[in-house]
Amino acid sequence: MSKKYVYMFSEGDASMRNLLGGKGANLAEMTKMGLPIPQGFTVTTEACNKYYEDGEVIADEVVEQIKASLAKLEEIAGKKFGDSKNPLLVSVRSGARVSMPGMMDTILNLGLNDISVEGIAESTQNPRFAYDSYRRFIQMFSDVVMEIAKSKFEKVLDEMKESKGVKYDSELTAEDMKNVVAKFKEIYKAEKGEDFPQDPYAQLMAAVRAVFRSWNNPRAIVYRRMNDIPSNWGTAVNVQMMVFGNMGETSGTGVAFTRNPATGDKEIFGEYLINAQGEDVVAGIRTPKSIKTLEEDMPEVYKQFMDIANTLEKHYKDMQDMEFTIENGKLFFLQTRSGKRTAKAALKIAVDMVDEGLINEEEALLKVEPKQLDQLLHPTFDADALKKAKPLGKGLPASPGAAAGKVYFTAEDAKNAKEAGERVILVRLETSPEDIEGMVAAEGILTVRGGMTSHAAVVARGMGTCCVCGLGEIEINEEEKYFTLAGQTFHEGDYISLDGSTGNVYGEDIPTVKPEITGNFARFMEWADKVRKLKVRTNADTPKDAKTAVEFGAEGIGLTRTEHMFFEEDRIPKVRKMILAKTEEERRKALDALLPLQKGDFIGIFEAMEGRPVTIRLLDPPLHEFLPHEDDDIRELAKDMGITFEELKAMVVSLHEFNPMMGHRGCRLAVSYPEIAEMQTRAIIEAAIEVKKNKGYDIVPEIMIPLVGEVKELKFVKSVVVKTADEVIKEAGVNLTYKVGTMIEIPRAAVTADQIAEEAEFFSFGTNDLTQMTFGFSRDDAGKFLEDYYEKQIYDFDPFAKLDQTGVGELVKIATEKGRSTRPDIKLGICGEHGGDPSSVEFCHNTGLDYVSCSPYRVPIARLAAAQAQVKNPR
Amino acid sequence: MSKKYVYMFSEGDASMRNLLGGKGANLAEMTKMGLPIPQGFTVTTEACNKYYEDGEVIADEVVEQIKASLAKLEEIAGKKFGDSKNPLLVSVRSGARVSMPGMMDTILNLGLNDISVEGIAESTQNPRFAYDSYRRFIQMFSDVVMEIAKSKFEKVLDEMKESKGVKYDSELTAEDMKNVVAKFKEIYKAEKGEDFPQDPYAQLMAAVRAVFRSWNNPRAIVYRRMNDIPSNWGTAVNVQMMVFGNMGETSGTGVAFTRNPATGDKEIFGEYLINAQGEDVVAGIRTPKSIKTLEEDMPEVYKQFMDIANTLEKHYKDMQDMEFTIENGKLFFLQTRSGKRTAKAALKIAVDMVDEGLINEEEALLKVEPKQLDQLLHPTFDADALKKAKPLGKGLPASPGAAAGKVYFTAEDAKNAKEAGERVILVRLETSPEDIEGMVAAEGILTVRGGMTSHAAVVARGMGTCCVCGLGEIEINEEEKYFTLAGQTFHEGDYISLDGSTGNVYGEDIPTVKPEITGNFARFMEWADKVRKLKVRTNADTPKDAKTAVEFGAEGIGLTRTEHMFFEEDRIPKVRKMILAKTEEERRKALDALLPLQKGDFIGIFEAMEGRPVTIRLLDPPLHEFLPHEDDDIRELAKDMGITFEELKAMVVSLHEFNPMMGHRGCRLAVSYPEIAEMQTRAIIEAAIEVKKNKGYDIVPEIMIPLVGEVKELKFVKSVVVKTADEVIKEAGVNLTYKVGTMIEIPRAAVTADQIAEEAEFFSFGTNDLTQMTFGFSRDDAGKFLEDYYEKQIYDFDPFAKLDQTGVGELVKIATEKGRSTRPDIKLGICGEHGGDPSSVEFCHNTGLDYVSCSPYRVPIARLAAAQAQVKNPR
Repeated sequence: MSKKYVYMFSEGDASMRNLLGGKGANLAEMTKMGLPIPQGFTVTTEACNKYYEDGEVIADEVVEQIKASLAKLEEIAGKKFGDSKNPLLVSVRSGARVSMPGMMDTILNLGLNDISVEGIAESTQNPRFAYDSYRRFIQMFSDVVMEIAKSKFEKVLDEMKESKGVKYDSELTAEDMKNVVAKFKEIYKAEKGEDFPQDPYAQLMAAVRAVFRSWNNPRAIVYRRMNDIPSNWGTAVNVQMMVFGNMGETSGTGVAFTRNPATGDKEIFGEYLINAQGEDVVAGIRTPKSIKTLEEDMPEVYKQFMDIANTLEKHYKDMQDMEFTIENGKLFFLQTRSGKRTAKAALKIAVDMVDEGLINEEEALLKVEPKQLDQLLHPTFDADALKKAKPLGKGLPASPGAAAGKVYFTAEDAKNAKEAGERVILVRLETSPEDIEGMVAAEGILTVRGGMTSHAAVVARGMGTCCVCGLGEIEINEEEKYFTLAGQTFHEGDYISLDGSTGNVYGEDIPTVKPEITGNFARFMEWADKVRKLKVRTNADTPKDAKTAVEFGAEGIGLTRTEHMFFEEDRIPKVRKMILAKTEEERRKALDALLPLQKGDFIGIFEAMEGRPVTIRLLDPPLHEFLPHEDDDIRELAKDMGITFEELKAMVVSLHEFNPMMGHRGCRLAVSYPEIAEMQTRAIIEAAIEVKKNKGYDIVPEIMIPLVGEVKELKFVKSVVVKTADEVIKEAGVNLTYKVGTMIEIPRAAVTADQIAEEAEFFSFGTNDLTQMTFGFSRDDAGKFLEDYYEKQIYDFDPFAKLDQTGVGELVKIATEKGRSTRPDIKLGICGEHGGDPSSVEFCHNTGLDYVSCSPYRVPIARLAAAQAQVKNPR
Repeated sequence: MSKKYVYMFSEGDASMRNLLGGKGANLAEMTKMGLPIPQGFTVTTEACNKYYEDGEVIADEVVEQIKASLAKLEEIAGKKFGDSKNPLLVSVRSGARVSMPGMMDTILNLGLNDISVEGIAESTQNPRFAYDSYRRFIQMFSDVVMEIAKSKFEKVLDEMKESKGVKYDSELTAEDMKNVVAKFKEIYKAEKGEDFPQDPYAQLMAAVRAVFRSWNNPRAIVYRRMNDIPSNWGTAVNVQMMVFGNMGETSGTGVAFTRNPATGDKEIFGEYLINAQGEDVVAGIRTPKSIKTLEEDMPEVYKQFMDIANTLEKHYKDMQDMEFTIENGKLFFLQTRSGKRTAKAALKIAVDMVDEGLINEEEALLKVEPKQLDQLLHPTFDADALKKAKPLGKGLPASPGAAAGKVYFTAEDAKNAKEAGERVILVRLETSPEDIEGMVAAEGILTVRGGMTSHAAVVARGMGTCCVCGLGEIEINEEEKYFTLAGQTFHEGDYISLDGSTGNVYGEDIPTVKPEITGNFARFMEWADKVRKLKVRTNADTPKDAKTAVEFGAEGIGLTRTEHMFFEEDRIPKVRKMILAKTEEERRKALDALLPLQKGDFIGIFEAMEGRPVTIRLLDPPLHEFLPHEDDDIRELAKDMGITFEELKAMVVSLHEFNPMMGHRGCRLAVSYPEIAEMQTRAIIEAAIEVKKNKGYDIVPEIMIPLVGEVKELKFVKSVVVKTADEVIKEAGVNLTYKVGTMIEIPRAAVTADQIAEEAEFFSFGTNDLTQMTFGFSRDDAGKFLEDYYEKQIYDFDPFAKLDQTGVGELVKIATEKGRSTRPDIKLGICGEHGGDPSSVEFCHNTGLDYVSCSPYRVPIARLAAAQAQVKNPR
């Protein structure tokens, strides 16, 4: 007995979305509900997967099932496929689990050939309609299925109109259309070397194959990656009886939403065209009418339409996006689905539906995409202005929001321009910690190199600043201060605009709109907080970031990177002195000078967090990151330090590393130079004591030792930390509790987590580095080949943006299990970039972590994602 | 009830070595055997570990047990500690599980003080002896326990001799010695601010503490690392009643072996001194006599000695190294242990003992250290010449053997000099693949940078060439062709000598001796092969290496690195053309030119291996490794290629990687450029077909895809390989079986090995890279901090030399288990540098792998290690 690969609409229901795709499942559900649906059948997503497994061949058993289903459909319709009298025509459409742009377009009127076109002419008594449909079908089939350029057909039509001296297609006669059909068939033959297929079955199978093929076209692949859709989901194919909205004044076609998708207002929203087919609505030649006027045009139909619309919304408990056709006064629904909506509308709809009693709070939480919340927190472009703008290029959407301003090429220029009142876009080959002040000054940041976790991206997200990264097409000349993109050259002071949510770059000044936060947001997020089990912390290195994060609902800091403080202008000379010290004594002296500054940093952060937990990571990056590398800069520093250029250059060279990511960094620094860890510990503990005393907050600092791979190295550094901390506490004569824990970011730490947990009071999964080490590629270099991997469908996603649950996740699970085996109450969190990615947050919830930590602007996203995870899989 | 930390000799036996240390366990065993042993007790290794756990304090319970044992010893001896009449004196000695140089020296005569010295004088009727013993004790205690410089005491003694006008200590009178004692006590007080301890218990506890402390002195730490001894073994302390060999002409002391430790000949071997203490033998002032003359000196004692020696050898079933003392004609054994021996002697003894029926073949296998076999395969220095030579510096012992010759600084100079008949030592900052011809020409290789797995080290080991790496003290000027070391400057053509087994570098031409392989070797290795379950393959890139390995017993090739073939002078231009190709077409053309050359390589290797299995790895390193990086070289290449310098420079820069180890390499290259994998596959399969046809070998090539982290990337590259291979086989119209497998060297591959095994017919663990990724450090950079890690005892070993069984090994186990879960018959091997390390080979045996693969000269080591593993843990 063969597997079932084809389902009649009457055989399915909404629960079969994975198998039938969203469109197919909803058509089946509506059929079950007794709604007026042109009948048909769905070829399953499994058939699509089988097609690929079999080497891009539709298996015989699938072909047989399609034929059998078509026979049933003929029976239901009382029409025959390819019939000369009363032929059955069908539409063929793709339908994945979720709506997916980039997939194959609809093919209408399939089943027409030289014989059945006459049947249509006869049955409709409308030869012009018949031949118009036929020529549309030939063009659509040739374009979509056979990849013959549309323009070739349009040229023929234009020539025909010209020769007839008319302006619109509608002015051509039946005879004209017949001639057009003949010419279209000639084009087809010339292009393909064979006649246009007359066998309707051959047409159908070719269309099904084209749908399957379109699952793997480049646009679809990119869309999937952007939207977390695995490539093994596959697409279904829906074959549906045609109904015609273009049969006269009592016919029409339209699209409608049960609520306003822009505002969320509870009102029917949509438009329709009388005497038209779907493609006419899309083509935009005639202006469609508002759905509300249908009440006047066809009151009966309107009433029926509204009844069904309301039924569907109540049935699906969500705002519906519906397509319908009226054929000679008879209403048909062609599809329904949950409607796409703005973040603002999503919130309003969710909150309203709870108030209406349609859904409960938990259900409401699932109605808003966590990632959408970004829209509410960042500026966006003015929608009208954006419509007119054309992007010059597309980089990585590294930090969301919209920004427009004048380009500057150095941090200093950017800072000065900002002070002079300009809106600034900082454009750099790549950013480094030295650029921080320019980045703060900028409305937006654009880099040529670097990925989603590059320095620019991470810092920008932390600040909530719009950022586009890795726009490789740009040619930049930083010295002469210009860049060229898409043939245009931009000099310092020229305007550009960046969309950090899409990666688009525009060569003009597009107005932006400030985000508008409504009361619905607060109410909705309260529900989320009530439900979720996973705590949400933030990654913050400054009091300002910390405050922002608290406003967004952060419950603590999961990661403070102390090295970020080292790059500030007044500190870097002291840091360099420390690094270049030749003896422990010299180094201690330099560290003594840094101590009060670091202490000040921590006081600011502790005050901003008002007693919430704060995890501070000891110095992590390799020391050479703090040193200049260009000869000119080295010369300058040597002068400042009173040593020779050669001497300093030799020191810089000696710190060079072949693979800095795998070099002398993290706790390895503290093993070599325990005095650095001592200074940082002293700064943390003294700050905590001072803030506790002055403000009364009960501060329990969490000191985090990075890059541990072996319990003995944790033990060693911990002993330095504990000794120092206890000394400081004793000196101060107060009571202060503190915790010492570690990052799990080295595979060896994960597999030996049972040993490590004996020394660590908490683990924080550093999934950025863990991803690098687990995959064995560096995020700075992976850009060179990741595109090849997406193209060849080896990876569906960027593992730096979305946690790789199979590999990296397995190590997280191993570490969680082993860690709890030796310390059952160990606190577990994640502080990589993944902490703000919804699917990764869900993974953390399911794995039983205690918290996630993410950049301030992602805190609301993580809160909602955590709540959704709990609703889906209560723990 | 407290734990037992102290055992009387009569309470233990040889099986308690871990607890009592080697010396303590053997003293106990000899006591049990009823042999004449001065009695005493052993403080356990657990007491040592407790000492460190408690923060370097000897716990009260340990102190109490020592005192109680001492009381028992007093009873046995019939003497009292510190007694004024007949005092008990003891020696205190360290004793780890295995004999370990670098630990604390012996302290003799402990228990002497101002009162007991008189007791000794009285009981022996020999005041001179008593005060001589006392002054020796003060000096030894001050030096060894209190770290007061020995020279301070020697100066006093010299002055005393001068003032008395005598030459030897022995000419000083009792009164003189009394004066010396007084002065020694003054020195002690001046140095320590307190009197020399008169309480014998205080002396004893200080000595015990000093032994514990010496476990962690730097020499001991280095020795442990070199000899695979974990730091948590700890050392025991042996406290033993003194007996005196210096009581006159019927007293004496000596050391002897039951067989000749240099040749293995079955004859007593050793020496003794009449009227002397152990330290006199060591001091070398008097020339000891051969043990055989004892038969004339004291026939009765000699007979007793030989009886006991024979008994001990039979009892321990091994050649014994014994210390003895004769006190007034009465023989005492102070210690026995298995004697150290040369590789040649080890083989002879093992084989002889089997022939004597003393042990069986399996036991014999355990009598030879696998690493010792190295001595048999490489030249060594002439022993007499070496005694006179003084090393100028010490690098890493990267590839064993001895070499002497003239220094050359470039590969070309080295090659030319070799052709001119010179013995050549190649000295480089570091080597790169371009140096290969110079390395082949050299007797030995010395590099300033790089570790045990650097390019120089790996290549040298493969060729069996002596190599010393990472000699950082050198200052080298490659351009002007000289280096300085220890204040001496060496120019091109000057002689130096290298010891690749110790890392020593000498500034002279030391004669070397060719290795001598005896019939015992073949016989012994036959036993090993009969026993072992683990197969041993080799890593070989050339027919020459392959032949060498087969001669050493390799059963196949586990790793052929195809890229090594790319660096040869006639190929590199073609390789560069391939890399710099701008289109796939250009690249294919360049690859076509490489195809016949690669095919030729594989033909050579297949022929050399005569039908044994051969695993060939597809191209692995990042492409920029094949390009020049210096501007001058780029300019030259640009000229050759007919493009501008700027153009080529831009290409080279665009291939730059931040972390090349984690960059665009391994199978990632084949994903981006499948045509490279196609060419290599074609070369492999065509070669196999040709050799099969011409020579009749049944060749089953194993094609290995490197750096896989995700099953889909393996699937992709495998599909390219299979398609190409099947095409070639079809073209040729023959039958050929081949296998496709992968390296497991990325942590993600290990944790997803179940998925990967569905596509891979074999796994080869690439433990070099797996170690890097698992620890998160690069071997090229780790040198900077590993020393700190050893010093702080965070790592006991270099994880690149000895497999980290806890972390990396855990991943190997996970991968083995998961791999077999989906493909039970999957073939599993290891091809990292660890494949030739005995403890790692044992791990592979225990984990159930099928084979190890190592460089040709390590094949015998691996064979023996595998056999030992099977004897210890049969599978």
